[in-house]
Amino acid sequence: MATFRILVTPGDGIGPEVMEEALKVLGRVQQRFGHEFLYEEETIGGAAIDRYGVALRPETIAKAKASHAVLFGAVGGPKWDDPRASVRPEDAILGMRKQLGLFANLRPVRVSPELIGESTLKPEVLQGVDMVVIRELTGGLYFGKPKRRWENAEGRQAVDTLRYSEREVARVCHVAFQLARQRRKKVTSVDKANVLRTGQLWREIATEVGKQYPDVELEHILVDACAMYLVRRPASFDVIVTENMFGDILTDEAAMLAGSMGMMPSASLGRQRKDGTGIGLYEPIHGSAPDIAGQGKANPLAMILSAAMMLRLSLGLEQEAKAVEDAVDAVIREGLRTPDIAGPGAKVVDTRTMGSAVAERI
Amino acid sequence: MATFRILVTPGDGIGPEVMEEALKVLGRVQQRFGHEFLYEEETIGGAAIDRYGVALRPETIAKAKASHAVLFGAVGGPKWDDPRASVRPEDAILGMRKQLGLFANLRPVRVSPELIGESTLKPEVLQGVDMVVIRELTGGLYFGKPKRRWENAEGRQAVDTLRYSEREVARVCHVAFQLARQRRKKVTSVDKANVLRTGQLWREIATEVGKQYPDVELEHILVDACAMYLVRRPASFDVIVTENMFGDILTDEAAMLAGSMGMMPSASLGRQRKDGTGIGLYEPIHGSAPDIAGQGKANPLAMILSAAMMLRLSLGLEQEAKAVEDAVDAVIREGLRTPDIAGPGAKVVDTRTMGSAVAERI
Ligand SMILES: [Mg+2]
Ligand SMILES: [Mg+2]
Repeated sequence: MATFRILVTPGDGIGPEVMEEALKVLGRVQQRFGHEFLYEEETIGGAAIDRYGVALRPETIAKAKASHAVLFGAVGGPKWDDPRASVRPEDAILGMRKQLGLFANLRPVRVSPELIGESTLKPEVLQGVDMVVIRELTGGLYFGKPKRRWENAEGRQAVDTLRYSEREVARVCHVAFQLARQRRKKVTSVDKANVLRTGQLWREIATEVGKQYPDVELEHILVDACAMYLVRRPASFDVIVTENMFGDILTDEAAMLAGSMGMMPSASLGRQRKDGTGIGLYEPIHGSAPDIAGQGKANPLAMILSAAMMLRLSLGLEQEAKAVEDAVDAVIREGLRTPDIAGPGAKVVDTRTMGSAVAERI
Repeated sequence: MATFRILVTPGDGIGPEVMEEALKVLGRVQQRFGHEFLYEEETIGGAAIDRYGVALRPETIAKAKASHAVLFGAVGGPKWDDPRASVRPEDAILGMRKQLGLFANLRPVRVSPELIGESTLKPEVLQGVDMVVIRELTGGLYFGKPKRRWENAEGRQAVDTLRYSEREVARVCHVAFQLARQRRKKVTSVDKANVLRTGQLWREIATEVGKQYPDVELEHILVDACAMYLVRRPASFDVIVTENMFGDILTDEAAMLAGSMGMMPSASLGRQRKDGTGIGLYEPIHGSAPDIAGQGKANPLAMILSAAMMLRLSLGLEQEAKAVEDAVDAVIREGLRTPDIAGPGAKVVDTRTMGSAVAERI
């Protein structure tokens, strides 16, 4: 019987509600496959600001580092929204990524046949969409220095800096190629090599890393073309890998293919061990949704699918991950819907009923 | 009788073919409305490299500066594609923008009811889409310094710089608000103010400029949210204004709403005179399409609609611009189609027939 340590950080808003359902599903996985999941729970985000004065305590980081994975709910809410505040709920996720060295953000985009009508794109265009967008998470335009504002004789000025090193590009490309190997064996590297020096570096390194994976096809496209093709021929993508800000834009665009954010999981990964696993942080891409918190309206499937990614990527439990994903597919096929994905005449259920239904099907 | 000087630069590939049709249409406008258009024609792009060794001659710039507007076809082709070449066809457009001080790129996106089926988005989502995306063209991430590559003990490195001054942001925002006044009176300013210092500056200046246009509504959205909303609720936009690279990405995504690039015009504008007009460069967003050059398959409507933008924005001829746009709408309504926009069973016509049809309807 394998034992795994998991840090659970439910956070704010609907975070605790959807986390409860993910834990319910994981409980069923333990039982069914005979693993032992040892949980630690920590308060983070706005709740931690209220309780400790900071969004993320050093103790929480220490526990995260001693774990196989972190299951992260959501943080933030109007109570902590003051832009002048010195502590912000988002510090929890930014701090966690930084302290754990998580440099690759993975967002799978799959369109299930039953929900194909939810999107603004035509069903025939969405047929077969199944991609993972990998965004470099700790470098690029969001973190480069100088990053400042000043004033001179010509008025106010501001600068941000897009900087990459060979090492930063290579490690995230490796994540992409390794993932593609387990999938349809195609990597699309997205850059702006025709205008940016960092884009040239990105393309050069992606090409070199690609040579180490001769079984994986590599294509290069420009970021503006990618924004176009995501709408034009989304089913042509398998794994996309790109710069931090490009990824920020493209993942949000890609999320629209699925129609609802309520179903979309994500993973943030750092260095991988030889067996391909490593510590990771798993969170739904929807936020804390304070407007519906505590009402049983939240869709727990994104959190549950994040837990499935954890099983696969940090715990190395592929079969178990698949069992959870199949159970989610099954409840969708059976017509269970939380309000966010309920079309006319749908069987609307609450958060707990949805979670229990998934657990029962494992 | 008003006289206007227009510099015509057909360029490469299908450029000359579509230009011929635009001039045919302008000929009809002259006749019908009693204006005099004085044309100068210059060789640019690949054709100029072959003839003069450079893509853009100083003489051409001088003629452009002495004109009311530049009608620009398209440049480039496989013959001049060597990335190591010291002269490139694209130098023509980049040089023209720089020398003429064209800092605002305008791309209208309209979906005509007859072509609504061409898009990958659902018709009901496209209903009423009518926006102009304005991209800052001479600053931002594509031009900031330092912009270089080097190597150190940790390997290869690269940097690009996103820099803006108050003045650069303000002038392009003014273009947006002035345009919105002639339209539905809404400006969406797109930035990344939550992460970038240049984004904060952008939002601050856009807000200040907006105060001078109290009759125009101003909304701010983040660039990743904009990428999402363009797919989710495109009809909600009127005028969008944004940073150079954001605009590069968002305009290409927005182009997909219309289904085909063959219909999409653009304008690049510099400082405006008191009456709101000023020198501008007008070009279709499709490229030189060397694969179909000389076969009569090119769609001339993007070039013709670019000429309509010229009539409105550089010559101050609103009624004439509208007459051209209405004529384009009419031929589309009557079912005339070039191959790029021809659905099953459509009346396919060649480039010249399409151009003549538009001219006749003015
Ligand atoms: Mg984003
Ligand atoms: Mg572009």
